[in-house]
Amino acid sequence: MNRSAFTHWTDEQLTRVEAKLDELVRADTPAGLGEAMRYGVLDGGKRLRPLLVLAAAQAVGGDGDMALRAACAVELIHAYSLIHDDLPCMDNDVLRRGKPTVHVKYGEARAMLAGDAIQALAFEVLTPEDTPPDDGRTLALQARLCSLLARASGTYGMAGGQAIDLASVGRPLDEAELQDMHARKTGALLQASVLMGAACGVTSAMAWQALTDYGAAIGLAFQVVDDILDVTQASDVLGKTAGKDADHNKPTYVSLLGLDGARHRADLLHERARSALAASGVSDQRWLASLADRVVDRES
Amino acid sequence: MNRSAFTHWTDEQLTRVEAKLDELVRADTPAGLGEAMRYGVLDGGKRLRPLLVLAAAQAVGGDGDMALRAACAVELIHAYSLIHDDLPCMDNDVLRRGKPTVHVKYGEARAMLAGDAIQALAFEVLTPEDTPPDDGRTLALQARLCSLLARASGTYGMAGGQAIDLASVGRPLDEAELQDMHARKTGALLQASVLMGAACGVTSAMAWQALTDYGAAIGLAFQVVDDILDVTQASDVLGKTAGKDADHNKPTYVSLLGLDGARHRADLLHERARSALAASGVSDQRWLASLADRVVDRES
Repeated sequence: MNRSAFTHWTDEQLTRVEAKLDELVRADTPAGLGEAMRYGVLDGGKRLRPLLVLAAAQAVGGDGDMALRAACAVELIHAYSLIHDDLPCMDNDVLRRGKPTVHVKYGEARAMLAGDAIQALAFEVLTPEDTPPDDGRTLALQARLCSLLARASGTYGMAGGQAIDLASVGRPLDEAELQDMHARKTGALLQASVLMGAACGVTSAMAWQALTDYGAAIGLAFQVVDDILDVTQASDVLGKTAGKDADHNKPTYVSLLGLDGARHRADLLHERARSALAASGVSDQRWLASLADRVVDRES
Repeated sequence: MNRSAFTHWTDEQLTRVEAKLDELVRADTPAGLGEAMRYGVLDGGKRLRPLLVLAAAQAVGGDGDMALRAACAVELIHAYSLIHDDLPCMDNDVLRRGKPTVHVKYGEARAMLAGDAIQALAFEVLTPEDTPPDDGRTLALQARLCSLLARASGTYGMAGGQAIDLASVGRPLDEAELQDMHARKTGALLQASVLMGAACGVTSAMAWQALTDYGAAIGLAFQVVDDILDVTQASDVLGKTAGKDADHNKPTYVSLLGLDGARHRADLLHERARSALAASGVSDQRWLASLADRVVDRES
């Protein structure tokens, strides 16, 4: 793995993503709503999901405008979920990406509305109004991307995982339940990122299945590493409140497997992601491989 | 207008819509989330938006599975907006459709998540997974419907209108500001209902524009009548807390134009809707005409 080539690639992609998000999340919306939305979306975050979309798209020769839109749409869903998750009726968190959370800065009502509007915006972004009505290929791709994103966001994905998380506070989950929760809560959107990128190009059924497996493995690895970092890193490194899961008596991979056990699990999932990728047969695996490494090696 | 034929038609359509919503909003989702979603969606409401979708679809010869899905998707967006609107950080309302609101019954966190999941579900419903990949016509329609619905829901539509509403409490709006707020807050989704139905069939550019005007007129008429009912009807007739806008010192058409002025405005908008419809040249105008009447004549 050439780390500097990867860094160069990510810098280039992040520049594209930030510029597009800046264009898409407009300030000129009513009553300060756009300002709150921009605060919640721009200038922060690792942008792992957009990178996965763009790496998968490139892997299958599908780079282009819809891939960039898909990258932004996935990040918008992620951003809205953080805004709602931080609200007092949920995690009641005041710090996110090293800044006051949206509701601390703009009030609860506007934070909730900003989240709602950002979710809608994700689907606006996937279905630009200026698509020519006779461009059937692009319209079909848009429908496919909406389908993947909606399913990763709703009951079978993120919102369903959040509901399990809510119900689990103070109640011991076993490992299967914990895995189901995380597969939905964070895994579904990470996996959808990979598949939305792959949908932008041409894939065999075998490659699609392998990328599905890759996405599931890094989705879960991401959460295991999150749980590890939550106990090993300080808040200023994480840019969010550390140790809050333990404080809230929430089950985590560390509480279930111990710190060493959790690290071992992350390594296994990393290997599984790399093997799935190798088995996919897609032509350009570089950045997806490097992203799997980053998910496990990251320090925040 | 044959009122009993209209009643027969609406009964038939509502049976289809309720059965489809019952199928789409599943109970078997994690941690009671589906239960809260079903409580917020099923067994209540006038279903005006689904009726507009189905009437418009029928008007342009576009009835079918996607029209029914569009009808349900619009109602889902409406239902989620009510759940979020009733939350303590927004209107803090405890009564809706004659029942305790979702957060009263299921708690704030689950109500917020249920709303979020219902918004995602609306886009799932528009993009069924079993659409054959080579059915380009249906996929293109799905993309179009997602585009219309997302734009009616987000900053340029409902969420933007809500933000203006929030910011307006205790501050006098002039008529243009009030109209802009309502055009977004309730008008956009009513108009989108008409256009989503129309998208399911074949329309000329002229018919599309006329239906756009029809949708704008009934959207605004709906809100004017809402403001009238808020001061003339008791809570038990409305199925929600009456008089709350006046209590919150919110601007309304009644506070701005007086009760007679508001009634006159509703009649003007009704006429405008009927003329636009007549000018559309679409083949079957019956139910859209009757729905325009109902928007203005309703008593709750």
